[in-house]
This record gives sequence, C-alpha cells and structure tokens, in this order.
Amino acid sequence: MFEAAELGRKISRADFDALAASLRNELLDLQFALRTADFPVIIVFAGVDGAGKNEGVNLLNEWMDPRWIVTNAYGPPSEEERERPPFWRYWRDLPPKGKFGLFLSSWYHLPLMERAYETRTLAEMDERLERIIHFEKTLADEGALIIKFWMHLSQKAQKRRLEKLEADPLTRWQVGPQDWDHWRIYDKFTAAGEHIIQRTSRSHAPWTIVEGQDSRYRSAMVLTTVRDAVARHLETRAVARKVEAELKRPPAAALPPPLANQPSILSSLDMTTAVVGEAYTQALQEQRARLARLQQKAREKGVSTVLVFEGWDAAGKGGAIRRLAAALNARDRQIIPIAAPTEEERAQHYLWRFWRHLSRAGRTTVFDRSWYGRVLVERVEGFCVEEAWTRAFTEINDFEEQLAEHGIVLAKFWLHITPDEQLRRFQARQTVEYKKWKLTDEDWRNREKWPLYEQAVNDMVEKTSTRLAPWTLVEANDKNHARVKILTTTCDALQAGLKRRKK
Amino acid sequence: MFEAAELGRKISRADFDALAASLRNELLDLQFALRTADFPVIIVFAGVDGAGKNEGVNLLNEWMDPRWIVTNAYGPPSEEERERPPFWRYWRDLPPKGKFGLFLSSWYHLPLMERAYETRTLAEMDERLERIIHFEKTLADEGALIIKFWMHLSQKAQKRRLEKLEADPLTRWQVGPQDWDHWRIYDKFTAAGEHIIQRTSRSHAPWTIVEGQDSRYRSAMVLTTVRDAVARHLETRAVARKVEAELKRPPAAALPPPLANQPSILSSLDMTTAVVGEAYTQALQEQRARLARLQQKAREKGVSTVLVFEGWDAAGKGGAIRRLAAALNARDRQIIPIAAPTEEERAQHYLWRFWRHLSRAGRTTVFDRSWYGRVLVERVEGFCVEEAWTRAFTEINDFEEQLAEHGIVLAKFWLHITPDEQLRRFQARQTVEYKKWKLTDEDWRNREKWPLYEQAVNDMVEKTSTRLAPWTLVEANDKNHARVKILTTTCDALQAGLKRRKK
Repeated sequence: MFEAAELGRKISRADFDALAASLRNELLDLQFALRTADFPVIIVFAGVDGAGKNEGVNLLNEWMDPRWIVTNAYGPPSEEERERPPFWRYWRDLPPKGKFGLFLSSWYHLPLMERAYETRTLAEMDERLERIIHFEKTLADEGALIIKFWMHLSQKAQKRRLEKLEADPLTRWQVGPQDWDHWRIYDKFTAAGEHIIQRTSRSHAPWTIVEGQDSRYRSAMVLTTVRDAVARHLETRAVARKVEAELKRPPAAALPPPLANQPSILSSLDMTTAVVGEAYTQALQEQRARLARLQQKAREKGVSTVLVFEGWDAAGKGGAIRRLAAALNARDRQIIPIAAPTEEERAQHYLWRFWRHLSRAGRTTVFDRSWYGRVLVERVEGFCVEEAWTRAFTEINDFEEQLAEHGIVLAKFWLHITPDEQLRRFQARQTVEYKKWKLTDEDWRNREKWPLYEQAVNDMVEKTSTRLAPWTLVEANDKNHARVKILTTTCDALQAGLKRRKK
Repeated sequence: MFEAAELGRKISRADFDALAASLRNELLDLQFALRTADFPVIIVFAGVDGAGKNEGVNLLNEWMDPRWIVTNAYGPPSEEERERPPFWRYWRDLPPKGKFGLFLSSWYHLPLMERAYETRTLAEMDERLERIIHFEKTLADEGALIIKFWMHLSQKAQKRRLEKLEADPLTRWQVGPQDWDHWRIYDKFTAAGEHIIQRTSRSHAPWTIVEGQDSRYRSAMVLTTVRDAVARHLETRAVARKVEAELKRPPAAALPPPLANQPSILSSLDMTTAVVGEAYTQALQEQRARLARLQQKAREKGVSTVLVFEGWDAAGKGGAIRRLAAALNARDRQIIPIAAPTEEERAQHYLWRFWRHLSRAGRTTVFDRSWYGRVLVERVEGFCVEEAWTRAFTEINDFEEQLAEHGIVLAKFWLHITPDEQLRRFQARQTVEYKKWKLTDEDWRNREKWPLYEQAVNDMVEKTSTRLAPWTLVEANDKNHARVKILTTTCDALQAGLKRRKK
C-alpha cells in the first residue's frame, strides 16, 4: 500500500509557483462559497511522524482565511474528557456548516497507537474502527465533507527528517524521544496504518495517501485535493438539494386504513392506574429518599445518569421533573429543556446539541424533550425528509450505545395521557389565569395530529427500546402514579447501574 | 423492542378483502415496472419460528408473478458451499436486476443461532454482523432495494401456534423438535434478535418488525410494505439516474501538470531485468516442478489459490498464464478470461461474476483480467461514474479479505512493459500473420491513454496492495524474467499459505 508513496516525488520551485498562482485564489473562492453552504468540511491529518501533518494544518491556515477554520489537536484525554464517552471531545469540536475543521491526533490516534504497541488485539482494534466508520458515516449522511490525509515517509526518509529537525535549533523542540520510539517500531506502525486505511477508507470518507518527503509536492497534493473535493461537494450538495425537493413527500403519511386502526404500544396501557392519598405521599417520600441516597453513591462512584422525558402536551413532564429534581442536590444535576435549536445548533449535526450537554461523571442530566424530536415532531411535521428520520433510529441507537458503554445510566420516559384527559387539561389551563401561558395554538394543532404522533411513538419504541436503553411508558392520566413510577424506575435503573459498576 | 409487536393486532376478513382488491393489481403493476428497472429487490424473512416466515414467502409468490421471483432457503452449508467463503452461496443466489429474490434462513440465520445457543461471544457476533452490513451496503450502493422482515410472536403465542400446527395432520410436518428447543430458549432468541435488528437496521437495509399472530394482519403488513418500498425505490432510482447524468464528469480526469508528471509505482521498476539462456530454462523447470508439488499438497489440504493477471496490452499475460497452467493438473485448475460482461452478468452486481467462479477447495483459479477492471478500464473509459470506481477499492478489499479469511491463497500480478516495448510488440503483431488477430484498434486507442492508465494502476496498487493480498509488479519487457518471477511468486505464496493452514 505504501510502496506507492515512496517514489521520491517532488516538485520544483518554478512548477510550484506556477501552480500556486491560481490555487490560492481558487481556495479562497471556494472557502467563500462554503460559508453559505449547508455542510462543514472535516479534514483529518494522520500518518508517520515528520511526514508533514503539522505542516499540512499550518499550510491550510496560511492559504485560506483562518477565521473560517477551526484547528483541533488532541493529547491524552483530560479529566473532563475521561468522564464522558470517548467521542464526546470530537463531537464538541466539530466545525459548524460553512467552516473547515482540521483534526490532528484525532480519533485515529488511539487505535493506531494501541496496535503499534500491541496493547490491543486486532479484533479490539476493528471494534474501534467500526465505531469510527459509523461516526464518520453519521456526519457524512447529514452532508459533511470528510477528507483524510495519511502523510507517509519511508523509514529511511523518516530518520533523515527527524535528524534534520533535531539539527536546527528552531525546530529541535518538535522532536521528542517518542518520535524515535515510533521510528524504531516503524514496521508495526505502518502495518497498523495499512489496516486502518483499508478498513476506514469508505466512499463517504476516503483516505488520500501523501508522499511526505518533498514539502512542495506534499503541499501541492494537500491543497489540490482539498480544492477538488470542496468544489465537487459543493456541486453534489446542490444536486442533492434538488433531489430532496423532487422527492419531497407529504410529511408522515398515515398508514392505509386497516393497518392504521390497529392498537399501538400505547393502547396496551392501563390508563386507570392511580395512586391516592396516603399511599402517594408515602411512596413519593420513600422513593425520593432512595434517589437521594443512590445519587450520593453515584456521585462517589462517578456513575452518571441521563433521563429522557418525552410525552404528549400537558402530560405532566414539568411536574414530574420538578418532583424528581427536588430529590437531587442541585450541584449534581442539570435540567436541559429542548426547544427549537438555536442558530449555533442548527449549524451542526442534530445530535451535536445533545452530546454537548453530557455532564461530568456522577451527575444527573434531565432532558425535557430530547434527540427523539427527530423521530417525533420533525417526522410528523415534515421538518426533515423521510430518509433523515428513518436513518435517525440507527444514529440514536449508536449514540445511546456509547452512553451505555461508558457506564452511564439511561432511562427514557414517555408520559402517556388519553385524548380526553388532554382535552380536560387544556380546558383547565384556559380557565386558570396563571396556567394560561402554558397553552398555545400549537398545542391544539398537535392534538389534531394525534394518530400520526401515536404511530411515530409506536415506531420509536419499537426501534429504540433496547435492553441497554429501554423505554418506560408511563400511564400519566393520574399524575401521582406517573410521578411515583418515574421515581421508582429511575431508582431501579440507577441501582442496577451502580451494581454493574461494582463488578 | 418487541413489545410493539405483541399488541394483538388483527384485521377482519372484510377489511382485508377491501385492501386486497386494489393491492394485488398494484403489486403486479409494480412488478411489471420493475422488470425494466435497473435494480433487484432483495427480501429477507427472519424471526420467530411459527410467526409466518414461510407464509410470507408463499404469499408474495402467490400475489405476484412467480416467474420473476427467485426464492432461496438455506440449510447447513453443503460440502460444495463449505469449500468456498461463507457468502459465496448468497452471492450465487442474488436476483438479477428486475427480479425479486426472497431469502429464508439467510445470512442472519447463523449469527442468530450462535447467539441463542451461546456458542459465540457477542464480539464474534458483531464481527459477523459487520460483514453483513458491508454485504448489504455493497448491494445497495449498486442500487439494490433491500427489505427485511422480522416476524415476531410472543412466547405464549408461539406455543399456541406450534400446538395448532401439530394438531393438524396437514401441517404437523412443519413442527420439529428443533422448534420446541427454540421455544424453550425464547428469551435468548429474542435478545439475540433484538441485537441483530439494532445493529443491522441501516438506512440502506432497514428491518420491519411484523406482529405475526394474525395471518391477515401479517399479510397486509408484508404486502403493503413491499408495495410502498418498491414504488418509492422506482421513484428514487429514476431521480438518481438524473443526478448521475447531471454530475457526469469527463472520465478519469488527469492530475494537474506538476502532479501528473510524477514518478508512478511503475517507474520505480528496473525494466532492464532479464533472464537468458540456460538460466531461464533451468529456473522455469525448477519452479514448475515446485508448483506441481505444492499444488499436489494444496489439493490434499484443500487450500485453494486465486491468481489475478492484469497488465498492459501485449505485456504477455497469455504466455505467462500458459506456462503456469502447464505445471498444473488441468482437473485442478480453471482459467477464467474476463471480457465485457455477458447480459446475465450485466444484470448483477459487478462482483457477482467473480464470486461465481470461485473454485472448490484445493483448486487454482486463474483470472485473466479480473475485478480490477472496475478501477482500470471502467475508470479510464468512463464506463462507470467516479463514485462507483472510488467505492470499488473498498468493495474489492472486502472481497479479498473474505478470500484470505477462508484460507485462499491470493496472488495478483501487474505485467509491466515500457511504451517502447509495447510499440515494438504491436508492430511485430502486425507483421506476423498468425498474430494479427491479437491486435485491435482498441489496443491502439488504449495506448494513447497510457498516462491515465498509469495513474489508475498507481492508485490501484496504493489502495489494494495489502498484507493479505499484495500486488506483485512484474517487469515484463523480458518475457523470460516475467514468467520466472510469476512462477516463483506463486510458489512462494502457495508455500506460505500451506504453512498457515498447518497451524
């Protein structure tokens, strides 16, 4: 694989200058066009030490307008980062639409090191690589352009390069003992590199191997590859938007009659369940005390909890969350109300705004509405194309799997009320002065789409209620029952999570 | 996940008849439209025994024209099948464009059983599932529509169903002791099923879970899902073709000047290498005897060999293959000349025609030109869109990885001659009467595209020369040297393969 990158390719100064004359303007023009485009550009630099990874990043920053470029380089995970799932730090740093994001020592660094130093088996490496493939696919599916450069040097050339850097007082700092360590296990490094490239070179995120010996050749390769890829992607996305418009279907078509009148997962609930009087007060107190105790332990052990609340309008999410939050130390929990995304959030992948809110170890994060908006409101209202919300089921499962693997306790609640009960509550809100603000026209409109939402909820539970992250359907006609069930389920999940951590 | 498929959904006879009236015609119309479409429909049935997998297959055969439907069900692999990589039998049975292919006990069967009976770890299952994801992606990328039904029953409902089948003398044969075995480990089955669905439900091949208790509901779900998916895919593909036309670029654009004039992997070869006189005769005899001995052992051990020959026109592929073949028992080897695909082959995925030629264990298969046509002639001549040939590198690596994993010895040869030498040979062919047929106008045309082909060869070696399946570049200006090098390399590879098998 790397034979083709050890041929001694080089470019003369005159040739390079001739190329550079037009190239700089082309790149600036493209960067300008990108600013109003609907996708970010993600550029990964990896490869052999001394082959020009840093130079590549600097080059792009020099040749283009650095205000529209975000550069990210990673060391060992910080304490903050270790407390979240491994991909948290990469999600946090993703460039928004219209910008370039350059990544050094990125998500490829760890698998490469682990294989070069043989601290992991090939099968374990492959698991990591599959996660990477899905990560990049998730971004590409939403339009991101991903360009990956593998900068290569032969072992001999690497030695010369390191010696040269060491000889110059100005660049000596760039070479550490680690570089020479890597040089000594060059073969293992390149074997691991070959495997990585082969596995993760997918059409949505291909690798370009760059011969790194001659700095002008290297620069020309990086710059022209970026230019061609961005130009092409601008064109492809423009066509894709036309296609989307052409394929646009009425949002969330209902099923044909005999299939539409079927019971849903919600119709199997016993909506008469209720807890009254003393039993309620006692259960509430008990479970809140239990939750406080468990949260204390969770804080000590660093076990985080993520609670997701979805449900019909007026189903009582707010009240349930308040009662739950009361049992938790405010320092140890955050409540994230999810409304329409902000401008900053709209410029990112739709999962980005949820990744960013993952808390440090031992805390509880309560999402009042969540990433499930994609397969609920966005599906029913047609805010995204069908292809996007059907794809979301997989993306959400991947996301939640990463939470679970990190030891995060995840509980998801759908608060269910009957249409009659909703009407009663809407009417009550209209009459009680201090509750009026809670009822909007949108609530009435949503109510008309009840069957479509019911179908969406049914699909959501079917596709995302997994052993790792099950849904709890809460019969919420009786608010007392709902609150006790939510508290009890949360406690049970946390208890089980603490037990798993002990093992 | 399966809670949503245990709700007791059913459809009355009257409702079903009302739906059926239009449905049958719609399906027949779609099937007719499909016949001239550019994609096949692959339908997988999996799930709980007794939930209607067989009935689903029969249903589609009854409701549509069975002449355009291929039904495939799999038992344990036959001796013939065990001698090839596991996916060979599925590739063989893929429906051509315009047809439906129904699959029972398909590629999902083994991972499901292994997990239910816990003969494999979850990590091993995940590896199998990744292969499946890539298999389905490869087909979908070429346009295939993939529909997957998971037929579900609760444990109680399954019991009732099995008892009912047993009670009827006409259906008693359908229930074996294995069905009851599966029923007893129902929980493990559904846990494995959930994991499979979650992992392999991708946007290019989503699962539909069908509640299997009521036969009319089940039928309506299967039939309407197929109808909607086919109708949608016909529409999507029509748009995709328009997009392809719009994005069509000049085939295989050459690199910009300073980057195009670079040495390629071919320019690093020493083209003066030659073997003459006695040395040639002796080396040839030695290596042929060695190959004969090794092939004998390979036959005994069941180690297969696949040899791939690519090279410039007139580089001497034919002569080299003849000399190599002479050392092998004709029973034990086959030579597959690859020309333009036949009509039958054009109706399939481009890799299909190579899968079909994989030989039984212990044999040698020589491909005179190969699957690399995709990234050579098809790329340079623009026979496929750029997106297709860039994707092919990954597809080819996946394919070859499956060969290697199965213990097949793989050697790939690029026969290189210089342009001058080619000209000399072309001219010689023109003058020698019995060689004239070998030279066509196309050869002259290809010659004009030398730089484009050289770039394509360089990329091919860079992206597909892997440790498992390396390319051997053969300096073929001297035919003797080429023949000896090919023989020796083949022997070395076979010897190493036999050694691996012993371990």
